Amino acid sequence: MNGPDFDKCELVPVIAQDGDTGEVLMLAYMNRAAYEETLQTGRVCYFSRSRAKLWRKGEESGNYQEVQEILVDCDSDTLLVKVRQIGGAACHEGYRSCFFRRIDPATRNEAVVGQRVFDPATVYAKKRPGH
Amino acid sequence: MNGPDFDKCELVPVIAQDGDTGEVLMLAYMNRAAYEETLQTGRVCYFSRSRAKLWRKGEESGNYQEVQEILVDCDSDTLLVKVRQIGGAACHEGYRSCFFRRIDPATRNEAVVGQRVFDPATVYAKKRPGH
Repeated sequence: MNGPDFDKCELVPVIAQDGDTGEVLMLAYMNRAAYEETLQTGRVCYFSRSRAKLWRKGEESGNYQEVQEILVDCDSDTLLVKVRQIGGAACHEGYRSCFFRRIDPATRNEAVVGQRVFDPATVYAKKRPGH
Repeated sequence: MNGPDFDKCELVPVIAQDGDTGEVLMLAYMNRAAYEETLQTGRVCYFSRSRAKLWRKGEESGNYQEVQEILVDCDSDTLLVKVRQIGGAACHEGYRSCFFRRIDPATRNEAVVGQRVFDPATVYAKKRPGH
């Protein structure tokens, strides 16, 4: 068997990693159709769980993800996609990475450690839930 | 609110990344108890979905993960844990990373690109499903 096992799980989690810097950008999901479109176009397409439809990353913001490499894990139920992040930011809040808050194990407090690349208000016409 | 929102989702996906090399090692899950244990001990504890119990990574193989940094994503439903991977391998198949197979977008074929660090037969007493 090759690739993710969509018979086992309809949606597989997908880790997007910047292929040049190694920074982990985000986690989202693909169904079979999103996976096929990603392979065919070379641009990452996810499946949005909240909107229940294909989510062509960057369609609204212009911040596309170009595929550099696709890897599948030992259980064939998770993907790692190394990408070139167009526009420099993956997160809808304008940060390079969605993982922009660090947790202090001692206090549980969060601190913003990420780098803001754009102002969401100027990129998105109106506030959307999620990405 | 600080940290992952376990009220929203009982299990949150957790990306483990080698804090020194940036290599993405694996994806697993935490419930609230696993998260609390991880913060308290500084060693990564997951929740095994297949065994439905806390999974102290490395308990059997010796390949522990020491926490370097914990980050939470914009939706508070995914964690990124930067770790020091003891023993050099995160995958139960003996590879540094669980993502050791690369998919060729043109043919869908897989090729092993990962580096095998140990022989699972000598590390695990008997073959176990999953990790």
